Amino acid sequence: MTHIKLNGDGASFFAHVASISSLAPEWRTRAVARLNSLTKPLGSLGRLEEVATRLVEIRQEERPRFPKKAIFTLAADHGVTDEGVSAYPKAVTQQMVLNFLAGGAAINVLSRHVGTQVVVVDIGVDGDLGEARGLIHAKVRRGTRNMVREPAMNEAELHAALDVGIQLADWAAKRGHTLIGTGEMGIGNTTAASAITAGLTGRPVAQVTGRGTGLDEPGLSRKVEVIERALEVNRPHSSDPLDVLRKVGGLEIAGLTGLIVGAASRRIPVVIDGFISTAAAAVACKLEPKVRAYIFAGHRSSEPGHSALLEIIGDAPLLDLQMRLGEGTGAALAMNLIDAAAKILDEMATFSSAGVSEASA
Amino acid sequence: MTHIKLNGDGASFFAHVASISSLAPEWRTRAVARLNSLTKPLGSLGRLEEVATRLVEIRQEERPRFPKKAIFTLAADHGVTDEGVSAYPKAVTQQMVLNFLAGGAAINVLSRHVGTQVVVVDIGVDGDLGEARGLIHAKVRRGTRNMVREPAMNEAELHAALDVGIQLADWAAKRGHTLIGTGEMGIGNTTAASAITAGLTGRPVAQVTGRGTGLDEPGLSRKVEVIERALEVNRPHSSDPLDVLRKVGGLEIAGLTGLIVGAASRRIPVVIDGFISTAAAAVACKLEPKVRAYIFAGHRSSEPGHSALLEIIGDAPLLDLQMRLGEGTGAALAMNLIDAAAKILDEMATFSSAGVSEASA
Repeated sequence: MTHIKLNGDGASFFAHVASISSLAPEWRTRAVARLNSLTKPLGSLGRLEEVATRLVEIRQEERPRFPKKAIFTLAADHGVTDEGVSAYPKAVTQQMVLNFLAGGAAINVLSRHVGTQVVVVDIGVDGDLGEARGLIHAKVRRGTRNMVREPAMNEAELHAALDVGIQLADWAAKRGHTLIGTGEMGIGNTTAASAITAGLTGRPVAQVTGRGTGLDEPGLSRKVEVIERALEVNRPHSSDPLDVLRKVGGLEIAGLTGLIVGAASRRIPVVIDGFISTAAAAVACKLEPKVRAYIFAGHRSSEPGHSALLEIIGDAPLLDLQMRLGEGTGAALAMNLIDAAAKILDEMATFSSAGVSEASA
Repeated sequence: MTHIKLNGDGASFFAHVASISSLAPEWRTRAVARLNSLTKPLGSLGRLEEVATRLVEIRQEERPRFPKKAIFTLAADHGVTDEGVSAYPKAVTQQMVLNFLAGGAAINVLSRHVGTQVVVVDIGVDGDLGEARGLIHAKVRRGTRNMVREPAMNEAELHAALDVGIQLADWAAKRGHTLIGTGEMGIGNTTAASAITAGLTGRPVAQVTGRGTGLDEPGLSRKVEVIERALEVNRPHSSDPLDVLRKVGGLEIAGLTGLIVGAASRRIPVVIDGFISTAAAAVACKLEPKVRAYIFAGHRSSEPGHSALLEIIGDAPLLDLQMRLGEGTGAALAMNLIDAAAKILDEMATFSSAGVSEASA
């Protein structure tokens, strides 16, 4: 797959939302029984056991394994960067896409480290990536519109971006990927994620806005003021998550919302990265709470809005390494823990097979 | 190496303590310069950057790599289990050693997952492991003495156990292992670790004692009372960490103290696991504060005494997965993050090599 055909009617996205099922309790019982038969004190592997249980519930297998994993790093630009909300020039989005394709970015290093493929998608870079090799071309628009002047996306653009995510999940499922991670690259996208957070939760902008890639104090004040203006101009409906996403979100964020919905509809667990990915996931969870069961929060972001979004997701991140890079870096490291949890379930000896005595009651 | 010759005079241990050097600031400067040249916002990889910096300082190389890693899982029994301080029978120590050798325990699964060798050492199992294959035989005694009646070890036993650790570090260095993890197995050893914590810090026993592998409420009360009695009987000198270790510690804990000192003296970074390993490390750091620079705390234990020990170490754990298993499981997962940090330093593109614009000042 190198080119994705864009489709702006949203029908496929909504059909996938409707097809997401709840987890079946019998698989939980089976997972817990197996974990409790393994040679370790009950519950002593803590969160790895929680993860393992949920993997069984999602995959509906007693010993699921994840040999094929993929992180999708979606790249797009943001019209709102015209307002001076980032420490980096917009050109960096495209430069970093080329860096991803050349294998030199942090996400490449960490994905190689954990044995995960990185799939780089141009869903809205404001530049010409021509026929760049290894890239998935799905450009909906050259960057979003500037949200302080108009909605970031029109309806057709939103639906096209959501549908790109659905198609990526389809592709992953067909290729046999059973664990997916989300990542992104987009100069200006912490502005969009903070705006989504304020839009979904009603919290004050200043409380959910941070320094992104490294703004100074005046830069942060300007960013808060820009987001307040964007919310004022667009007045998104907090009870309509897609309205919030469309008006103050971004193309890569909408693509990730589609990807997360697509993964959940195919019972593929999805590991979300930091702040931006969690904004995409929060939109999906607000739209259909059943999505929550399929999401693993990978890494706690330093961005102040992250915790408000995590409440919507209903999961606590597996890692807190004070990273604030995005790209999917936190998801990559967390996928490795998820893999570890699956191997515990599959590879450990049982008390009876190993001849180990159990605890006294 | 299958048998370690025991040596009870302590001379080698003290020579290694004396040979530990402080980190050289010029290597810190070089590490930071390289990290800041890589294609990511300054400092955006958070703790991975801290780790990478310290690896450079320890190894005195700009791009250290860790292809050969080993976790040392030291096993021993504790006479104090006669007092009913554990949910599991003492026989489990030996059963689990056999499980380690057969590859079926959690530490085996996680070590395979992260590409680390597991070295299993009998430093004091109360049982006959004969010529068990793959085991390092270094039995100082069949379990410690019961600390509520007498010191857990006499001087010669303490020195022999410390020296076993030194010899293990020697062996690792000769085999080209440049990253070491610590692990342990010993029914009753959270009792010893809590006693060490109270002995070193002067904190009330009840504050630093937890449920170990799964004690109920009466079991926990009994454990606290047993530790109070052991401290009363032995009166360890809090200012003399080896006195505390000898009187209320354990053979595997003393072996780990020796291992950590041996690693530091050879500039090998050492990743400590949870509560028991941190007790061993705290003794080493109290004895010679320069050891701290070589230690990475791997995982935050659920045991209440852990945080008091971490203050002595001066490091915050990389992971908090609510695990309470020991064996080296937290160290294994953390070693993988340390490996990741080293690869970031070595494999990422620089702004100039990748043609990416830097942040505006």
